[in-house]
Amino acid sequence: VPEPFAARLAAAVAARGPLCAGIDPSPRLLAAWGLPDSAVGAGALASGALEALAGSVAAVKLNAAFFEQYGSAGLGALEAALGQAAGAGLLTVADVKRADIASTAAAYARAWLGRGSSLASDAVTVVPYLGLGALDPFVEEAEANGRGVLVVVRSSNPEGAQVQRALADGRPLESVLLGELAGRSPALGAVVGLAPGRQPLSLVDGPAYLAPGIGVQGATWAEFGAQFGSLQASPVVANLSRALLDAGPDPAALQAAAAAAAQAARAVCAQLGS
Amino acid sequence: VPEPFAARLAAAVAARGPLCAGIDPSPRLLAAWGLPDSAVGAGALASGALEALAGSVAAVKLNAAFFEQYGSAGLGALEAALGQAAGAGLLTVADVKRADIASTAAAYARAWLGRGSSLASDAVTVVPYLGLGALDPFVEEAEANGRGVLVVVRSSNPEGAQVQRALADGRPLESVLLGELAGRSPALGAVVGLAPGRQPLSLVDGPAYLAPGIGVQGATWAEFGAQFGSLQASPVVANLSRALLDAGPDPAALQAAAAAAAQAARAVCAQLGS
Repeated sequence: VPEPFAARLAAAVAARGPLCAGIDPSPRLLAAWGLPDSAVGAGALASGALEALAGSVAAVKLNAAFFEQYGSAGLGALEAALGQAAGAGLLTVADVKRADIASTAAAYARAWLGRGSSLASDAVTVVPYLGLGALDPFVEEAEANGRGVLVVVRSSNPEGAQVQRALADGRPLESVLLGELAGRSPALGAVVGLAPGRQPLSLVDGPAYLAPGIGVQGATWAEFGAQFGSLQASPVVANLSRALLDAGPDPAALQAAAAAAAQAARAVCAQLGS
Repeated sequence: VPEPFAARLAAAVAARGPLCAGIDPSPRLLAAWGLPDSAVGAGALASGALEALAGSVAAVKLNAAFFEQYGSAGLGALEAALGQAAGAGLLTVADVKRADIASTAAAYARAWLGRGSSLASDAVTVVPYLGLGALDPFVEEAEANGRGVLVVVRSSNPEGAQVQRALADGRPLESVLLGELAGRSPALGAVVGLAPGRQPLSLVDGPAYLAPGIGVQGATWAEFGAQFGSLQASPVVANLSRALLDAGPDPAALQAAAAAAAQAARAVCAQLGS
């Protein structure tokens, strides 16, 4: 069994800083890069972004939707991108936000975390609407292979509060779920979105955290610091998608955007003394 | 624009009864059918089940996980199965339980509900952890194409209550979400699982409903009647997966299992006077 995902992510953050590059080949971004709205275009965008950013980020998050929109051909492009990222020494997060139960959850886990799967990633994102216990098949596959399961606890969109702030035994669901994660498995981490206008969540120190929301979605590095600055043992990466990729397709411009983001992240971390 | 999904489902239920066949090519079922644990095996199982059951059910639910576990090749088999089902006049539900926001949700909607997509289905399942409003891109794509969006409000597994019974403004989330669906769009329906030990939910009459849980998962046709019997305007289908497919691969045995299930369903409906 390889080292656990959280330890591998901590090492990558120590080596290359707390950035995760979100690879989102949306139709808008493909047009901006001069690429076709097709599986071929999505594959070319991912390949170019990975080649330019490999030395600058700890991890990459590949957003399955933007490949799935091209059907099986799109999934083929995602397989190639996952292979390229792994070959470049990048940790891969498959952002799939899957959610199901029993043998269906096991099949999704096999797809995204299974040994030998063409879609295998270092970590996968999942959604807990069916209960945290329903995610056990993901956890088992992750534990067996040194991979991670990142539970979307808080999303970065304003509509998310309707569900995430509902009360379970008098406490907001997002807090209840966060509190239970670490006790269930060291393979479990969380996606904690930086949602403008919502107060920082109280976090358990130890699990891996992925933070979307900085940049176009409206959150700042100061808010990143306010949410994660007190953690000592947890590896944390901030996901930047459009904030990086809108600088492309020129590799030097992509690298400059990553360097600027890394500097902003370092300034926040230094200010927090971590 | 074709007729709305709910109207097409109502017509299919009137013509062929309230059954939805769940096509789940799990490794266990593939072995039972003598098929390989591969994309080819999953495709063969789906093809055989669709051919045997086309005249006996109103709709088929294709479970994406059991194709996705074979990567892009598996998605290719799912594309073929969706095409075969549509060609046989069956309504297709892509059981994908996707959940995301903004342009990512739009990309998933394009994949599963878009005109001309290789994965296009008559309806898709989605999960509301990111808020009902985050599903708007799915709703827009569905409305434009006469397709449906089935929101998983209550799942059939025991762990689901942790989230689904959390309180939003003092009411269980599952009730809040159900209450909001119909007012948002006629393209929205719900997945209401028959969860052993949970009380029937109060339903709005009109939206389409899909009910998993009968059979191996422990719910009975009487519980189906108790949950849905009072509806007059809503089309409702009960999903049966293992209860049908475990009878295969012999086509006559599959048809006999569907006929027995249809009879049980008719008995419940007659008893309820609907």
